[in-house]
Amino acid sequence: MRDITQGLRSVLFAPNSSELVMEMLSPLQPYDLAQLLLELEPREQVQFIEVLPLEAAVEVLEYLDPEVQYRLLHHADEQRAKDLLQILPSDTTVDLLLAIHPNQAAVLRGWLPEEYGKLIDNLMTFPENTAGSLATVDYVAARSHWTVEQTMAHIRKIGGRVELITYVYVLNPRGQLVDVISIKEMILASPETKLSELVAKTPISVRADSDQEEAARLLSQYDFLAIPVVDADNRLVGIISVDDLVDVIHDEATEDIQKLGGSEPLPEAYLKTPVRTIFRKRVWWLLLLFLAQGITGSIMQKYADILAQVIALSFFIPLLIDAGGNAGSQTVATLVRALALGEITVEDRWKVLRKEVTTGLLLGAVIGTAAFVRTKLMGISGNLSYVVSLSAFSIVTWASTVAALLPMLLHKLKVDPAIVSGPVITTLVDAIGIFGYFTIARLLLGIG
Amino acid sequence: MRDITQGLRSVLFAPNSSELVMEMLSPLQPYDLAQLLLELEPREQVQFIEVLPLEAAVEVLEYLDPEVQYRLLHHADEQRAKDLLQILPSDTTVDLLLAIHPNQAAVLRGWLPEEYGKLIDNLMTFPENTAGSLATVDYVAARSHWTVEQTMAHIRKIGGRVELITYVYVLNPRGQLVDVISIKEMILASPETKLSELVAKTPISVRADSDQEEAARLLSQYDFLAIPVVDADNRLVGIISVDDLVDVIHDEATEDIQKLGGSEPLPEAYLKTPVRTIFRKRVWWLLLLFLAQGITGSIMQKYADILAQVIALSFFIPLLIDAGGNAGSQTVATLVRALALGEITVEDRWKVLRKEVTTGLLLGAVIGTAAFVRTKLMGISGNLSYVVSLSAFSIVTWASTVAALLPMLLHKLKVDPAIVSGPVITTLVDAIGIFGYFTIARLLLGIG
Repeated sequence: MRDITQGLRSVLFAPNSSELVMEMLSPLQPYDLAQLLLELEPREQVQFIEVLPLEAAVEVLEYLDPEVQYRLLHHADEQRAKDLLQILPSDTTVDLLLAIHPNQAAVLRGWLPEEYGKLIDNLMTFPENTAGSLATVDYVAARSHWTVEQTMAHIRKIGGRVELITYVYVLNPRGQLVDVISIKEMILASPETKLSELVAKTPISVRADSDQEEAARLLSQYDFLAIPVVDADNRLVGIISVDDLVDVIHDEATEDIQKLGGSEPLPEAYLKTPVRTIFRKRVWWLLLLFLAQGITGSIMQKYADILAQVIALSFFIPLLIDAGGNAGSQTVATLVRALALGEITVEDRWKVLRKEVTTGLLLGAVIGTAAFVRTKLMGISGNLSYVVSLSAFSIVTWASTVAALLPMLLHKLKVDPAIVSGPVITTLVDAIGIFGYFTIARLLLGIG
Repeated sequence: MRDITQGLRSVLFAPNSSELVMEMLSPLQPYDLAQLLLELEPREQVQFIEVLPLEAAVEVLEYLDPEVQYRLLHHADEQRAKDLLQILPSDTTVDLLLAIHPNQAAVLRGWLPEEYGKLIDNLMTFPENTAGSLATVDYVAARSHWTVEQTMAHIRKIGGRVELITYVYVLNPRGQLVDVISIKEMILASPETKLSELVAKTPISVRADSDQEEAARLLSQYDFLAIPVVDADNRLVGIISVDDLVDVIHDEATEDIQKLGGSEPLPEAYLKTPVRTIFRKRVWWLLLLFLAQGITGSIMQKYADILAQVIALSFFIPLLIDAGGNAGSQTVATLVRALALGEITVEDRWKVLRKEVTTGLLLGAVIGTAAFVRTKLMGISGNLSYVVSLSAFSIVTWASTVAALLPMLLHKLKVDPAIVSGPVITTLVDAIGIFGYFTIARLLLGIG
């Protein structure tokens, strides 16, 4: 990579740089060209974007962050910048315009042709994380009375503008989606066949105002390569291609994992995120949980006299609260993921509860027995062994139950269940667990 | 859905059932037909697969579990079953043959034509979770001297067998991959163009013995719709299409989440998994952590005399160990995910460590201060406040450090870092944390 960067630098400002650059770089994929560009100095980056063939330059731009895109367009020759912006995929353009300063966006918006600009304006109205916000208008639309041959000719005419040719979207005169035909069907059909004669299935689409996760779910359920996005009146707004949804799937899983770990999700890739942001995303949960955990301290204080009488009671506190936290964390992780994938819904709540309580009882029995053995190994005699063992059993069962109920409840309340992290469950379970422990101790040891 | 099922039942065994069924169901997507099939009785399912048009039947089979696929093929008319098996996508066939009993697989294998059967045998040799295990041989291959027109004619000839027409794979006479041409380029080029004249980029491919995650990473990095799989000699083994990799991406995230929650991943969807399996996947980690946590109990026991002197020390044990566990859990979740996405690698270990230690010190300072305030609110006076505060600071910093080191270390040792779950970090941090707490107490309180 370093060699290529050096070679590129040496020809970038040569008189016939376009040909030299092409010769050197044409075997590279756009993604790799984008990585190469990022190794250059800002002035060289602009020159690079100017000497690349227009289509290649656009493909490279797609892999860059909006700030970099804007800087390049801003510093490039204005006509070149206009040409680039006009064939940039519409979803990329929307992301760019939304990410930069409104004044900067207004300048770029002014470069777009009237009709196309209006489409972009429309796409910009969809709130973040909706299906509409991911839609691109760079699709192939057709009418049902067209023949395969006509449609193919149409594709050849507009093809340069279309990112992906996988489906043809058949619209009626009102712009409503009536059919989706795969390019495979088109190629296999004879040229004079009308689109309406090809096997028609009810098209699967997603509403523009749905959550982007819904689009991802439908797409992976039906194994499509792109999914059409429609408005309330079934008019085609745009399409989302699978590569954009793969990014959504990755991002949603990342967010859930970070939330389950007990912090707010990071806005960017880890290495790009400064310490102050990481700190801010973690500190509030940590502090909140610490304050909540204060209750446990107060409960312990209340039972200070019992602790003073049987100091050995305190030995088992870490074991007990961790066993509860761990059991709860297992349940929460499993259920939050199952909810995110749509494997379980609110209707399954009793089934889920029964499953988790049963599992909790079994796990509680195992850990309760282990706790009994452990006290004996520590040389604890008498009823204290029973206290610890019974408490371990109860806390594990209790943790599984709470950890089953809470995500389902939040899901029902339309709150993201992933905020019930392992740490949250641990904290919730601890106070009751410690209270239970002392209560059992009082009863079985006859003290307090 | 229930209405359709009833309607279907009423025509399934009618004399002209094929037409009636088609009339009723042709607008449905294969995924929905598969769901419909699962609502029927076993005998009806077989009849359903027999009366559907062959291609539709195959598309439905793809969405079913191997056991169901086998049952249907086994009970259907033998000629029909053979026809189905021969046009079933090769990756589905491989999964089916590997999932059923070897004797059953041998029967099905015997139904395949000689040459195709050998391809299937080859695909079956790739270990689970490798790129090769996901590959399908249902791709379009071409030679570089073919024209676009010749290639299109070839596609029309073999098209029925090919699942997805998105790329044409150009091979040399030795079967090595020399170019990948998108169907878009083909459609936009004039018919007499030779494939070798189309813009050639160095093809991106994945080795058959690579991890499937590597294939998923390349595919999402380059935004491809399918990725070619090659052997050590660059010969094309098959391709993996994006919809199969979307499943991989989902599954890998699910596994990581379940592991981070402190249990072994479930083999199947949650509701399908019986309690005894859920129990088995959770109990070993829970027990192991419980036993490891025993050390904490022993440390407490060792300091029993200190505890007896200052009973208030025990009040803060839950707070301290949970603060450590929570901070560690935050770090672990973030880093394990960043490693899985390739955002960080072993080379970044010092950068990561510096980042996490800095964040840990900041978080430690906040929690340490909160702990000081908390002790004052509880009416604790004297040096004990400092002991608790300093311990809280130390344990949070320590937890962040351990949680940064461990995943990186495991990654370097080629062990899945996701086994360092929140619960594992909590357990690891607790013993040292408690030991530190008592040591600080002894020094500052002048006891023991």
